Amino acid sequence: MANKTKAPGLNRLFETIEARKSADPKSSYTAKLYARGTEKIAQKVGEEAVELALAAVKKDREEVIAESADLLYHVLVLWADAGVTPADVYAMLAKREGMSGIDEKAARKKD
Amino acid sequence: MANKTKAPGLNRLFETIEARKSADPKSSYTAKLYARGTEKIAQKVGEEAVELALAAVKKDREEVIAESADLLYHVLVLWADAGVTPADVYAMLAKREGMSGIDEKAARKKD
Amino acid sequence: MANKTKAPGLNRLFETIEARKSADPKSSYTAKLYARGTEKIAQKVGEEAVELALAAVKKDREEVIAESADLLYHVLVLWADAGVTPADVYAMLAKREGMSGIDEKAARKKD
Amino acid sequence: MANKTKAPGLNRLFETIEARKSADPKSSYTAKLYARGTEKIAQKVGEEAVELALAAVKKDREEVIAESADLLYHVLVLWADAGVTPADVYAMLAKREGMSGIDEKAARKKD
Repeated sequence: MANKTKAPGLNRLFETIEARKSADPKSSYTAKLYARGTEKIAQKVGEEAVELALAAVKKDREEVIAESADLLYHVLVLWADAGVTPADVYAMLAKREGMSGIDEKAARKKD
Repeated sequence: MANKTKAPGLNRLFETIEARKSADPKSSYTAKLYARGTEKIAQKVGEEAVELALAAVKKDREEVIAESADLLYHVLVLWADAGVTPADVYAMLAKREGMSGIDEKAARKKD
Repeated sequence: MANKTKAPGLNRLFETIEARKSADPKSSYTAKLYARGTEKIAQKVGEEAVELALAAVKKDREEVIAESADLLYHVLVLWADAGVTPADVYAMLAKREGMSGIDEKAARKKD
Repeated sequence: MANKTKAPGLNRLFETIEARKSADPKSSYTAKLYARGTEKIAQKVGEEAVELALAAVKKDREEVIAESADLLYHVLVLWADAGVTPADVYAMLAKREGMSGIDEKAARKKD
């Protein structure tokens, strides 16, 4: 609950998305995605990220917003499919930020 | 402010990231990313999404969390670079959800 | 001509693909892709690469072959759209290999 | 052998890359990539494709050539790692082209 109050925006949408897991695949796009399986969901995340990257390079602000919404939506479906919650990811982000003190990226793998 | 209370989790990290825009590129990974430019930031978003997709297909829950944190972090940098805020993206997500009534994806482009 | 004899396989397909540039978009998938423009073609390359990466991680050899064919095909369309020929890319690969003497990657950008 | 003569350009590079499989990971970038494993190789394919997509959208012909070389090189490493040869992929491309008669894409999955 403490985590939920941290980001009600994404959390509320996540709850809606998670509730679709038990829905008829014909009833919604989200339910259909679950039915197509993890790999299809993962593909969509990759595809939407490529579209967001292209929108950013074109410096098209409106398209960045639209593609970001598409990407976040599919990331939330991926989380629901993987048994991950927004709170899990926020905790990881907070942990990294806390570790570095000055830079949230410091604890990351280098590559 | 109303927007901030909607998702303080991502918003707070976003503010930290945005504040790095004026920092010395040597002072933090984030400042260095801005200095490398929009295309490099866009590349990183694409790369991290591919890594997240691979983690999901491997069904490695811990790696999904770690890669999701990496992806979200770079998406926030991309937003800051593009003059987009979390509130802009949440508003788009809410608009789509509201339009469809039953499915947040209904208003999206088909492809 | 000297370059063509180097890789007739890809070159022949490339010629077929390039010839579609002047075709009616309704006549073939390739002609339709050109009509949709550079960004759509670039998206498809990113998407097919994500699918190939997922097939590799799943260790599904048949799917690796199928997705590689999809990726190569879209890369050839991207080249035709960009005014690049297979010979241009083979020359770059040969140049890098020659520079390093022992490793074709040695001359690449590090990141 | 018949297959090799079809595309000596990629085939020769592929042979060089495959020969690195038994090399010391310190001896070359290629040998190091094998040592890092299938997932790392798959990631690189995804990353290079994103970079190629961005180069195409920027209409930077020289960068398209350079990034295409990077992508093809990593695709060849992925094939060697997966036990796939250029001939396997050319055969698939030829099969699709033959099936459609007018369009090499006709036999592909739709999505």
